[in-house]
Amino acid sequence: MDLATIIGVVSGIVFIVISILLKGQLTTFFDAASIMITIGGTAAAMLISYPLTKFLNGLKVIRHAFHQDTVEEPDIINMIIDLANVARKEGLLALEEKAVELEDEFVKKGILLIVDGTEAELVRNVLETELVFIESRHKKNQKFWEDVATFGPAWGMIGTLIGLVNMLQQLEDPASVGPNMSVALLTTLYGSLLANFVANPIAAKLAERSDSEIATKELLIEGLLSILAGENPRIIEEKLKAFLAPSVRESIGAQEDAGEEVGA
Amino acid sequence: MDLATIIGVVSGIVFIVISILLKGQLTTFFDAASIMITIGGTAAAMLISYPLTKFLNGLKVIRHAFHQDTVEEPDIINMIIDLANVARKEGLLALEEKAVELEDEFVKKGILLIVDGTEAELVRNVLETELVFIESRHKKNQKFWEDVATFGPAWGMIGTLIGLVNMLQQLEDPASVGPNMSVALLTTLYGSLLANFVANPIAAKLAERSDSEIATKELLIEGLLSILAGENPRIIEEKLKAFLAPSVRESIGAQEDAGEEVGA
Amino acid sequence: MDLATIIGVVSGIVFIVISILLKGQLTTFFDAASIMITIGGTAAAMLISYPLTKFLNGLKVIRHAFHQDTVEEPDIINMIIDLANVARKEGLLALEEKAVELEDEFVKKGILLIVDGTEAELVRNVLETELVFIESRHKKNQKFWEDVATFGPAWGMIGTLIGLVNMLQQLEDPASVGPNMSVALLTTLYGSLLANFVANPIAAKLAERSDSEIATKELLIEGLLSILAGENPRIIEEKLKAFLAPSVRESIGAQEDAGEEVGA
Amino acid sequence: MDLATIIGVVSGIVFIVISILLKGQLTTFFDAASIMITIGGTAAAMLISYPLTKFLNGLKVIRHAFHQDTVEEPDIINMIIDLANVARKEGLLALEEKAVELEDEFVKKGILLIVDGTEAELVRNVLETELVFIESRHKKNQKFWEDVATFGPAWGMIGTLIGLVNMLQQLEDPASVGPNMSVALLTTLYGSLLANFVANPIAAKLAERSDSEIATKELLIEGLLSILAGENPRIIEEKLKAFLAPSVRESIGAQEDAGEEVGA
Amino acid sequence: MDLATIIGVVSGIVFIVISILLKGQLTTFFDAASIMITIGGTAAAMLISYPLTKFLNGLKVIRHAFHQDTVEEPDIINMIIDLANVARKEGLLALEEKAVELEDEFVKKGILLIVDGTEAELVRNVLETELVFIESRHKKNQKFWEDVATFGPAWGMIGTLIGLVNMLQQLEDPASVGPNMSVALLTTLYGSLLANFVANPIAAKLAERSDSEIATKELLIEGLLSILAGENPRIIEEKLKAFLAPSVRESIGAQEDAGEEVGA
Repeated sequence: MDLATIIGVVSGIVFIVISILLKGQLTTFFDAASIMITIGGTAAAMLISYPLTKFLNGLKVIRHAFHQDTVEEPDIINMIIDLANVARKEGLLALEEKAVELEDEFVKKGILLIVDGTEAELVRNVLETELVFIESRHKKNQKFWEDVATFGPAWGMIGTLIGLVNMLQQLEDPASVGPNMSVALLTTLYGSLLANFVANPIAAKLAERSDSEIATKELLIEGLLSILAGENPRIIEEKLKAFLAPSVRESIGAQEDAGEEVGA
Repeated sequence: MDLATIIGVVSGIVFIVISILLKGQLTTFFDAASIMITIGGTAAAMLISYPLTKFLNGLKVIRHAFHQDTVEEPDIINMIIDLANVARKEGLLALEEKAVELEDEFVKKGILLIVDGTEAELVRNVLETELVFIESRHKKNQKFWEDVATFGPAWGMIGTLIGLVNMLQQLEDPASVGPNMSVALLTTLYGSLLANFVANPIAAKLAERSDSEIATKELLIEGLLSILAGENPRIIEEKLKAFLAPSVRESIGAQEDAGEEVGA
Repeated sequence: MDLATIIGVVSGIVFIVISILLKGQLTTFFDAASIMITIGGTAAAMLISYPLTKFLNGLKVIRHAFHQDTVEEPDIINMIIDLANVARKEGLLALEEKAVELEDEFVKKGILLIVDGTEAELVRNVLETELVFIESRHKKNQKFWEDVATFGPAWGMIGTLIGLVNMLQQLEDPASVGPNMSVALLTTLYGSLLANFVANPIAAKLAERSDSEIATKELLIEGLLSILAGENPRIIEEKLKAFLAPSVRESIGAQEDAGEEVGA
Repeated sequence: MDLATIIGVVSGIVFIVISILLKGQLTTFFDAASIMITIGGTAAAMLISYPLTKFLNGLKVIRHAFHQDTVEEPDIINMIIDLANVARKEGLLALEEKAVELEDEFVKKGILLIVDGTEAELVRNVLETELVFIESRHKKNQKFWEDVATFGPAWGMIGTLIGLVNMLQQLEDPASVGPNMSVALLTTLYGSLLANFVANPIAAKLAERSDSEIATKELLIEGLLSILAGENPRIIEEKLKAFLAPSVRESIGAQEDAGEEVGA
Repeated sequence: MDLATIIGVVSGIVFIVISILLKGQLTTFFDAASIMITIGGTAAAMLISYPLTKFLNGLKVIRHAFHQDTVEEPDIINMIIDLANVARKEGLLALEEKAVELEDEFVKKGILLIVDGTEAELVRNVLETELVFIESRHKKNQKFWEDVATFGPAWGMIGTLIGLVNMLQQLEDPASVGPNMSVALLTTLYGSLLANFVANPIAAKLAERSDSEIATKELLIEGLLSILAGENPRIIEEKLKAFLAPSVRESIGAQEDAGEEVGA
């Protein structure tokens, strides 16, 4: 599980609940009809915006915000170095056995291309094309949640407008004005939470995950091509470490940082 | 019919109607003058923004949001493989007969270019130029509905301002304040619905459709050029499948997925 | 005259007037001081933003929103074919006579370059440089009206704030609150109309006109270069028709459409 | 002095003053504390945003919005033609004397490079690098005022919120509600004026000035390189005139316009 | 310490405090629950948006807004000239000793590459790759604070909505309406200050710092490559000075400015 997401979700809910309880009660803030128009309206707009399969797929990716990154960059470098050692000692063909043990399909594909004797330029080409498609699919998933973050508050306001119009027709009973208006405002609150507690943060974390997956896969491509070129494992390590932030490099060797004074 | 659009439209209307009926009545929410200033004003602004033919064309593309995609990517690949087999066995000229049976004018054009003995580079050039023009026409149609989504709420607010000014001139009759203000708010509600239930979702689905049509046509270009190059149908299949999302690939063969952990 | 602009302006005014008259009277909505602060303030901000000549020029281009496009793409193609026929039968020099009859300075310039025996690459260069400058001038004119659309509502709000501050100082007379507030809101209404009924639609139509002029001129460049290359008029026609939307192509020959299922 | 800026500033102030005086008095609209929180808060935010030297430099560029462009494009062309004539008759070295008389350091630098016998490619390189740096410095100055235009209204709202909170704590005295609220609104008014009467217009005029300076300097580079190439002054004139808008060209010779129907 | 940041923070706090004290008291403006929902909610949203390490790293970079730039461009140029003199007199290898004394890891890395006899093209390549990664890390840190600036006001509004709903449920006690509403507004005030007094200014100063660090490092790369090429220290000085703003150049030699009339 992604720790930050869990802390964020739990603490956010706690803050909201305390904030409500200090001067009111939770039941006031739960209104089925308001939930229906905000969430339902947003879902309706999203269904018109996306084909059904993409709509369902968009909902499913929410799980990625809760999954921990399984592959860390230093691990990738260590794996590449292992593979480079195997290739050096036992030849490129020995990589095939190794490939079977790996979980990551992307490395597997790369190794199989190498073992097949594919030219370096073509290996790079095939893997980078794959990367471009992966990146474009990720971008669409982020777009999906950014759209939710746009439609949510809009439908919240639509709900509030419907509530206000109804309330303004019934001004004869002054006692009902307050509660009616308070219910009308609930949809705006729901829409705002949908955007700023759910959709935008999810889109941001998906972007973060995508960035780090792309970076990892670029590292992999460089590493595999170095292996194919028969480079020294020590040199490969140096080369790949240039891809990492100075603070992360240390977890591999004891190399000095590159000079960077601001905003590391 | 596009299922998602239908579900979206119907469920959206149901949610709005229920939301209104819970505390008011539908007739309060229908006001011909408010519809006139919101829809009419938006239409007027759009007419100043666009030449008449483009305005009418912009309205017509709304039907695309309701049409189901007729061509699926796996179908295209299967069609290309069929054509490749024909070309292999009976020669490129045999494709001409096949072309006549096809509905898609874009493939037809491509096949005819091939049959005419056009050079590969020129075939790619002609078809990609066509694609660029198709894409730019699609972009303009999306822009049309994005403009509606901008003008709608703006004219909704103009209507509300007119209503408020009129109301504020007649404050002597306190009983009329509520209903007058409620009517004034209706245009804002209409404008908001026009943007978030109609125009923005349509623009988004047009973009979605355009993306998938462009992707399909790019697949077609690659496939036709492979046929022209006399490549093995089996190789062509492998090559084209790299264009598909892993989940879609399965519907063609039983190929393994490329490694992608996040946001597929 | 551009029909759409006329319909838009007239219908927009009619909708606004009806909307006002249904519950109030026109005189309430006319306030010289409010017009002064909204229009005057916007003009003042625009004068600080632009040098005087560009400010005056920006105002003048408004007429383009009302002019009908005089040159249609099919007409251009027909003209090019005529010229190609002349060049084929009587030689390139015969084009000079033809050029004198033409109104469009851009074609004239192109033909004179051809007649002068300029190399194809240089002709393309000179004409495309010209096109780049035309496009950049158009972009600035659109920017001018987009700036008006930004300053208009801002100064409308400034006017409303001035009105509200004055009103709040005179709360002792409750009877004046309504009318005073109603007048204060007028500037917001004016600013909103300035942006959404005048400036944004004008900017959009200027963009539309610019696009179609640029497309026409690109067609011209291709056509003139084909003439210079001595291509067959029939081939030129085919080539230039690829620049047109399928629906427009029909007005030239009886060619089939290129396959495009979505958003034509 | 830049006439448009002067007219804009003066007319803007007149419009605001009249607008206030029609229904209130000027003293109501002057409140030292409100000015402090709006201007002071914006300045504080800008100081955190920029290093001190850049903050002071950003304030200083405001004078450019009031300065008239001293160099007009036709003057530049005439100067280039003069220089070209000198170079033709008396040789490139004779330009050195001429250079001493010129005020513009950029031309001076260019001429000295030419006199030194620098290669054409290097001259272009040096001058264009200089231009890139000039442009990036201009962009930062525009950004400075765009930031002021963002922080101004934000701090105006902060001031209004402080005022409202204070007012709501003292509701017991109904007579003070109006004036207190009116003072609270003043900061929003100040912030709005800071953005729409000062900062945004200044940023726009700086952009305008930068564009015209860059265009002038590009003209200079082309001209100097033509002189270095020993081109005929008459040819140089023709060449440089292609950089000008048709309407400006006339002030040099009596050349026909290039065909441009829309948005000149 | 960065003087501008200190002045900005102190003066901003002073302005806010005075502004409050003129018509109210500080205690009214401090409300623990309001701080909790605004800051806590924003933090929760940021935690869902970013992995834990990036969240903590994002918070840490705030210190860069308070640090003074330690390296000034003229100092860099002087250092490069020193190194160039050493290299000229004692040979490239003598630079190694010098490198040990330097603090900046980036120069060190560059010098070591030179001493190792690396080819110029490869030195540039390695250092520029390093620069690209530094820049991308800086961009992410700015993005972090821009996200805070987006979530802050959003959660401020969520807090206000919760407060308003609670207040509207308790309208029976008119005396509590004012204070309750005033507390409800506090979260909007906090959110606005978080964005416009903290997050946006920090993001801007990080951008400023990043720009100047990148510019300095580009200067370094040019300088090191010139040393490697064995250029004359005097020539190197001239070359590097072209990277500086005219006003900064003077602090090195007594060179004339390049002509720039607007917006230096």
